[in-house]
Amino acid sequence: MAAPMKDTRIFNQALAEIAAAIGSGGIRHGEAIAQLDPGGHPDNLRASAVVSPASTQEVAAVIGICRRNSIAIVPQGGRTGLVGGGISKRGELVLSLQKMNRIVEIDPIECVAVVEAGATLQALQEAAMEHRLEPGIDLAARGSATLGGMVSTNAGGVMAFRNGVMRHRILGLEAVLTDGSVYSDLTRVVKNSAGYDLKHLFIGAEGTLGVVTKLVIKLDPVPRATATAIFGLPSTRAALDLVALARATGKLRAAEVLWSRYFKFTSGHFGWAAPDYDGDSPAHLVIGLGGNDETELHDALMALFETIAEPYPETTAVLAASTSQEQEIWRLREETGLMYRDYPAAPSYDISVPLGQTEAFLDRAVPALSTIEAGLSPFVFGHLADGNLHIVLNRPGDWLTDERRDAIEAILYADLRAMGGSFSAEHGVGSKRIHALRATSDPTKLVLMAQIKKALDPANLFNPGKLFDRS
Amino acid sequence: MAAPMKDTRIFNQALAEIAAAIGSGGIRHGEAIAQLDPGGHPDNLRASAVVSPASTQEVAAVIGICRRNSIAIVPQGGRTGLVGGGISKRGELVLSLQKMNRIVEIDPIECVAVVEAGATLQALQEAAMEHRLEPGIDLAARGSATLGGMVSTNAGGVMAFRNGVMRHRILGLEAVLTDGSVYSDLTRVVKNSAGYDLKHLFIGAEGTLGVVTKLVIKLDPVPRATATAIFGLPSTRAALDLVALARATGKLRAAEVLWSRYFKFTSGHFGWAAPDYDGDSPAHLVIGLGGNDETELHDALMALFETIAEPYPETTAVLAASTSQEQEIWRLREETGLMYRDYPAAPSYDISVPLGQTEAFLDRAVPALSTIEAGLSPFVFGHLADGNLHIVLNRPGDWLTDERRDAIEAILYADLRAMGGSFSAEHGVGSKRIHALRATSDPTKLVLMAQIKKALDPANLFNPGKLFDRS
Repeated sequence: MAAPMKDTRIFNQALAEIAAAIGSGGIRHGEAIAQLDPGGHPDNLRASAVVSPASTQEVAAVIGICRRNSIAIVPQGGRTGLVGGGISKRGELVLSLQKMNRIVEIDPIECVAVVEAGATLQALQEAAMEHRLEPGIDLAARGSATLGGMVSTNAGGVMAFRNGVMRHRILGLEAVLTDGSVYSDLTRVVKNSAGYDLKHLFIGAEGTLGVVTKLVIKLDPVPRATATAIFGLPSTRAALDLVALARATGKLRAAEVLWSRYFKFTSGHFGWAAPDYDGDSPAHLVIGLGGNDETELHDALMALFETIAEPYPETTAVLAASTSQEQEIWRLREETGLMYRDYPAAPSYDISVPLGQTEAFLDRAVPALSTIEAGLSPFVFGHLADGNLHIVLNRPGDWLTDERRDAIEAILYADLRAMGGSFSAEHGVGSKRIHALRATSDPTKLVLMAQIKKALDPANLFNPGKLFDRS
Repeated sequence: MAAPMKDTRIFNQALAEIAAAIGSGGIRHGEAIAQLDPGGHPDNLRASAVVSPASTQEVAAVIGICRRNSIAIVPQGGRTGLVGGGISKRGELVLSLQKMNRIVEIDPIECVAVVEAGATLQALQEAAMEHRLEPGIDLAARGSATLGGMVSTNAGGVMAFRNGVMRHRILGLEAVLTDGSVYSDLTRVVKNSAGYDLKHLFIGAEGTLGVVTKLVIKLDPVPRATATAIFGLPSTRAALDLVALARATGKLRAAEVLWSRYFKFTSGHFGWAAPDYDGDSPAHLVIGLGGNDETELHDALMALFETIAEPYPETTAVLAASTSQEQEIWRLREETGLMYRDYPAAPSYDISVPLGQTEAFLDRAVPALSTIEAGLSPFVFGHLADGNLHIVLNRPGDWLTDERRDAIEAILYADLRAMGGSFSAEHGVGSKRIHALRATSDPTKLVLMAQIKKALDPANLFNPGKLFDRS
């Protein structure tokens, strides 16, 4: 019992030091933590304190104090992560970026934004929209996901096939390292070949190498008009063919697929239906176009329908005639929370499959899951233009024994690396996918990852138990 | 004298080992080296041997032998680098990727290419074109620059404002490390958030961390039609305004600027002139458009002319009416070798300036250069849509004393970091820009670079004297 008491004393002394450095307003502990929303994982706020610095200098001060006292730090943004990348435990300190949420600058000539890491995607979208610009990346959690968190998980979303993922949108980055020093690279240009581009170490590192505090993000012009339709299609092949046709227009902004089980689930919940739309279709594809003129886009969607209906006459479609109809269609795709209400903490998978392999992969893997247990029938949906599939099982989280996990991963992950896909497309590794990372990665990559972690965070104080097993 | 003789004996023994491992056909030394083209720098082939493995396994074997014998390795691609990134010296071994030049695969569904690192950009462009695809990156040295070299310098070229630089085009990468182990990440998808994305360490590392052997590169559809025009404009401001207008069409593929001195130099050399085109204009802008239909593109170029001529009535323009006219216009921009014929090894600079700062930068910096020496008047040209300016002095290389270098860098580089630009946009650091890297970088970046170099190449055997001073 002596050790924990000593640890508690050290922790409390450190907290007093932190209060002296940044003021007590930015510190919560004990009861005050319970008032916060833990977000996407019940263990996000098990830490002994939640500290919210207001500036890079304050982040550096907190990190310095933690380091001297060997206190582990769990950086948190919007707590929307899906792989336990933000979970914390007693004796650790959550470093929340929520107070650092300024949109520092939008430059309409350079088409760049400078933001603090705690700003949400939606806040940036709104600020950029005043200049008819957008960050070129979008996802359902936009209202709470922070840009720092999105950088740390290398988020993707619905426009990645066109604009790349977060990594491709970041021009510059500032981060605080474990020794409290600040890596400052606020580059605003796309061309930069000036030595190792170390911002890419912090992008996708999930807070294990440094705390990202500021970002320079590339913006793109918002198209003057958009149009949305949903297509009911007879097969995955038909959906892939439609995606290819839609890409060829040069106007594609989103190609979100909902296979039957998921479509029926959300459309049933919302009571969504439309005349002449076949809700029993095996695959449903939401197509979003962007361009200069709404009529031209509606014509393009009509032309897509006519072209795809030739080889696939069973195709039906609904074109959204208003913003509210557009939102109703998008709700079918984005309200993923409904599944987790029915199946709390349902086991979920987020994979990338090269487009040429998508059909064969689904034909093989989805039926194979039912060999694990009768009635196991996943919800499957995702971003079809880049092969990013989300697979959510119709089981609660506690159903997932180690044995079942291994059986599922054997089905879903077995060939992914060989085919050039990824077991984590856009959610990261966190604590949940460490097993998959170790089981399916190039051994040399794992060695290098460990070398770099050791070089940058020798005391393992930054987000322990994420990406690497707790040692 | 004893030490060098011992070194020579060790080197020759190692070479015999290498011959046993990969055959003697892939080894040149002594006289045989002199028959090779040293390429962009006279010191590229000072090494004691040039070894050309035919496979990743052979690269690994050569590296293993070199490591055991403490022989430094200089990886080389097309030897087109402009910053001395491939120079070598006696006792070192050049590892040439020239035999590893296969286009392994073009997948038209996934829009990816798998290539060996020694393949040239042009070879990939030709192979992709058979599927109406392109690598989305283009530069004048396409016929000799290898894709491995382009990755190692994070090359940019004329389409970076639209498609990003090499870093943004690479989906997967294979590299051999100093211990002979192979880092293998042949991912073919854009969405991948599976731990540290370590390929970005090798991209832009100029061979100092590993030898890149294979790549997965993203391809894009080739537009059905292209059109090119050159505009004579009264000012940098007019050129920037025209770039903004051209970007807004959504069809822009190239916006290459030639300021007067450079335009007069190349147009004078080729005797290029056109009726009603004002060759005395201060700025000349080559605009390339791509789209579905040539008539539409010609109309778009005409519309651009009419729009820009309103505020700038001095504007003149020539629209290329044939492929040969298009090539003649491009030659004015691309034949940069002419300058170096007149001014051998002319001091040259390759900077990125944020677009909002470009005009002020040029107004300040170019006249300031003439304060260093009367008559010093640079050739200035570059990629205006991304702020990448090339500045070549009208002096031979041996004119550049340390004092003059410092004076020039004080003018050109002084404010670049603060404004979010870069002292090396697309050429890299090599041996030539180490001084600038050290003088202008974030100190924390330099510390991290050294840490990573030490972790991955503790014996400093990979391309010594590049990015870091020879120790």
